[in-house]
Amino acid sequence: MQLPLFSWLKEYDKATLGQDLGAALIVTLMLIPQSLAYAMLAGLPAEVGLYASILPLAVYGIFGSSRTLSVGPVAVLSLMTASTLGQLALEGVHYLDGALALALMSGGWLLLFGLLRLGFVAHFISHPVMSGFISASALLITLSQLGPLLGVSLSGHQLLALVDLFRQFDRITTATLVLSVISLGLLFWSRSRLRSWLLRLGAGEAVATALVRLAPALLVLAGILLSDGLGLASRGVALVGQVPAGLPSWSWPQWSALPWQSMVLPSLLLALVGFVESVSVGQTLAARRRQRITPNQELIGLGLSNLTAGLSGGMPVTGGFARSVVNFDAGARTPAAGIYTAIGITLVGLWLAPWLSLLPKAILAATIVVAVLGLLDLSQFRHTWRYARTDFIALSLTFMVTLVVNVELGLLVGIAASLLLHLYHSYRPHWAEVGLIAGTEYFRNRLRHQVELDRTLLCLRVDESLYFANAGQLENIITALISVRPEVRHLVLQCSAINRIDASALDSLRMINERLKLAGIGFHLAEVKGPVMDKLMQTPLPSELNGHLFLTMYQAWSSLTTQPEYVI
Amino acid sequence: MQLPLFSWLKEYDKATLGQDLGAALIVTLMLIPQSLAYAMLAGLPAEVGLYASILPLAVYGIFGSSRTLSVGPVAVLSLMTASTLGQLALEGVHYLDGALALALMSGGWLLLFGLLRLGFVAHFISHPVMSGFISASALLITLSQLGPLLGVSLSGHQLLALVDLFRQFDRITTATLVLSVISLGLLFWSRSRLRSWLLRLGAGEAVATALVRLAPALLVLAGILLSDGLGLASRGVALVGQVPAGLPSWSWPQWSALPWQSMVLPSLLLALVGFVESVSVGQTLAARRRQRITPNQELIGLGLSNLTAGLSGGMPVTGGFARSVVNFDAGARTPAAGIYTAIGITLVGLWLAPWLSLLPKAILAATIVVAVLGLLDLSQFRHTWRYARTDFIALSLTFMVTLVVNVELGLLVGIAASLLLHLYHSYRPHWAEVGLIAGTEYFRNRLRHQVELDRTLLCLRVDESLYFANAGQLENIITALISVRPEVRHLVLQCSAINRIDASALDSLRMINERLKLAGIGFHLAEVKGPVMDKLMQTPLPSELNGHLFLTMYQAWSSLTTQPEYVI
Repeated sequence: MQLPLFSWLKEYDKATLGQDLGAALIVTLMLIPQSLAYAMLAGLPAEVGLYASILPLAVYGIFGSSRTLSVGPVAVLSLMTASTLGQLALEGVHYLDGALALALMSGGWLLLFGLLRLGFVAHFISHPVMSGFISASALLITLSQLGPLLGVSLSGHQLLALVDLFRQFDRITTATLVLSVISLGLLFWSRSRLRSWLLRLGAGEAVATALVRLAPALLVLAGILLSDGLGLASRGVALVGQVPAGLPSWSWPQWSALPWQSMVLPSLLLALVGFVESVSVGQTLAARRRQRITPNQELIGLGLSNLTAGLSGGMPVTGGFARSVVNFDAGARTPAAGIYTAIGITLVGLWLAPWLSLLPKAILAATIVVAVLGLLDLSQFRHTWRYARTDFIALSLTFMVTLVVNVELGLLVGIAASLLLHLYHSYRPHWAEVGLIAGTEYFRNRLRHQVELDRTLLCLRVDESLYFANAGQLENIITALISVRPEVRHLVLQCSAINRIDASALDSLRMINERLKLAGIGFHLAEVKGPVMDKLMQTPLPSELNGHLFLTMYQAWSSLTTQPEYVI
Repeated sequence: MQLPLFSWLKEYDKATLGQDLGAALIVTLMLIPQSLAYAMLAGLPAEVGLYASILPLAVYGIFGSSRTLSVGPVAVLSLMTASTLGQLALEGVHYLDGALALALMSGGWLLLFGLLRLGFVAHFISHPVMSGFISASALLITLSQLGPLLGVSLSGHQLLALVDLFRQFDRITTATLVLSVISLGLLFWSRSRLRSWLLRLGAGEAVATALVRLAPALLVLAGILLSDGLGLASRGVALVGQVPAGLPSWSWPQWSALPWQSMVLPSLLLALVGFVESVSVGQTLAARRRQRITPNQELIGLGLSNLTAGLSGGMPVTGGFARSVVNFDAGARTPAAGIYTAIGITLVGLWLAPWLSLLPKAILAATIVVAVLGLLDLSQFRHTWRYARTDFIALSLTFMVTLVVNVELGLLVGIAASLLLHLYHSYRPHWAEVGLIAGTEYFRNRLRHQVELDRTLLCLRVDESLYFANAGQLENIITALISVRPEVRHLVLQCSAINRIDASALDSLRMINERLKLAGIGFHLAEVKGPVMDKLMQTPLPSELNGHLFLTMYQAWSSLTTQPEYVI
């Protein structure tokens, strides 16, 4: 195995160094509030977010295959971690122990999948399922931040937090509410207007873009200064509190006390979602520079990164979408930018930790809400409704179950639904009676094209592989067609869309052949694909066949037609 | 809904009556030992088998769609019933109560599926799964009869009965063993030799055939006479014992005392297996006389039949293979033959019951063993191994789990495995670079045929519907091909085998289009099927496409080729 590190290290020069350092500075400033906020979202102490943004980034820089992916805590994984830790707490597991174990276990899954080259598993989460899951997660995350934003401590799970909020309406602290409203207002304003405002003030493109991106960091800075100056804590505003200065130390969860059996599924889902998110960001960015990422190497990079997170006091990590785009746009050329970011966060941990403890939680909550509302994509519902109802069903089911029940079940139900709906499609194969398009050698559906037909010759195309679930349908279709067309003497099955014939379908074909033979009708196969033909030749079907195997439909037509006629 | 009854009643004449009566006589004589034996196999009193062979047959005769299916207790359903009743007994359920409830519940499922027109559910049990299940069941049934054959009472479940047998080796009764060996010998001999021996003796075809079929009934008669004459009971031979004379009375299980939740799945599986067995026998026989059966009507017929069985002291029933073939061969023309059989069994119940109680159990066990060993089809393993490995896996898994664990799990594992293996196939689509077959308008795989190619034009055919699980593969295939073929200017995707494109795959196609556009390569689709095209036209893809939509590959080739050349 060639380490991806060596592919870029040998061409590393001063220009690249400059670009990587510039990107790392911006990403570091962006990552400070994010790492604190996502740790808080997961229900963990703030420093866990910082620790998860040091060594895991460096490890990914060495083993990951994407050049610009920015690894670290991300919103959706933090929500999933929070959900699992909440359930584990009922079994008496300490949140921090649980987070370490989850990072280790999901890292283990990722590494295992990478070594077994099982990168394809990510494909079993379809786009609509992932999209519904992320939209529902964005809403759940927003809900979970209502407590910090309003200065109350909500205990209800999922949507029940809203009920709890009504009950505690009188406990909302005015100072916290004012701070939250201002923070949210500033953040939304900076997202939508700040850039054009700065440009109109005469700022350069680069400066304006950078300032928009650093808005959350500036807000955090302002929050710290305000908190210190006005003594916000004494006015009832909750602060982040005690962030120990220093570096992460090695850690190892107490496995014997952990109900690791109940963590198997959650950690697997964490690994899957983290991988899908990382790969889709990584592929999009790589394509922009005509680079490629290798999914299996990516699994190894993310796996080792999460294992490191678990060993160094962190939490589950993956490549974040917004942060990676910033990293890319800010000019990062190589994974070294990630390593420099790790160094940046280390310095923050060493020197700025005491200051961070002064930060009001409401400001962090505001940065989370503004970040995740960008993930909410309700237009997907309209699009998939119009394009494919089954995708819409999978999307809606995932969204509803995630929102109402919990994230794990939402994802599982979505995956199961999309698989079952896919099977349902192939169970009812589309079929068409085809005829010759005059002047060509092509056969198309008689209902859609003007084609030549023959009363004694029935040409049938079935648009699906034949397997156990739909083999019986073919028998029914043919029986029904033959019973209303007594003049038919030959039936040709166009096999161009049949990609596989399993043992059950083979039995069906033999049965059809036998029945047609009894009825005095020839049964012919045309355009059988190579791999399918190889299989068929090992069976008794070709010798039993009451007809021929034709290479093309046109050959079948030419040798079997007796009285062609035009039919509209 | 038109009752199937009316379709044959109006043409009923004296000749038909004669044929139906003749068939009913033979089937009745065959059904006497079978109904007793299968009740015993299910762990139920012998009369339950008789009761299940009276009203359920009459009801099926009115509502069923097959003209010659012989409904009643069958071996595999009895084994499944025994397995479920064994588990229910652990929860304190009386065997008879459980059997009535199972018949009612599986009848309910069948009727529900019929009314909802869900006949297709039967297709989800693939042929290899059904075949593996039946072979394993045949072995299990044989094992279960070792006890009665040897005169010991074995308590081990499944294969463990063998272990128990070794432990009780010294308890084997000599008289029972002798009786069993003679019975088995006679039955096997009558199956293989009796017919030709009778013909050589000068008997007519019809008489010889009838005698072979009646061998079990004759053996039962001989057994009764022997038992009475020699006083077998006093020599340690177990008899059927007390068969109450009379007719079934209405019954209704005590639902409140039944753990009906744990019967939902077993009753569903009973319904499925019974339906699959019935439909396959029914279809085979109907096809021989150019008749058809309607699966949804069949569900209603079998459903009402099982409900009746549950209400009249019976057990789960379905159409038996061997008995139906006999009914058909003996000349049954209409379902009235089934009604006459019901009358025959009623007369047996009224008059012969006291005699049946004298029958040695070993003789019944021998008839069961000889009947089910005919169901054991080990050649399936060889055939599916040769034809399709995935089918072989499904077959073997079903066989092993049924044999080693239990019948329910065996069936469930088989169904799940065949679905997953089907998905696995479509996840790795077969693809081929295609070229023009000189002198035709056809494009085939360059590796299998001698075709014309063009260095600047890449024609690709993917042999699978595009959906979430394999959409990423197409991106990978195209990226890999393009990266080693810098001279390619146009890529044509032949869509003749693409039967569906879901939302995830649509995203992939748009992504591929965008990437190819950036690389200066045209992206064209050819031979898109009608239904797929209808969907695509509602999306932004056609307008975004960096190329054209061609009706045929040949049109794409004609307009895009620049330097065609022959390549072998």
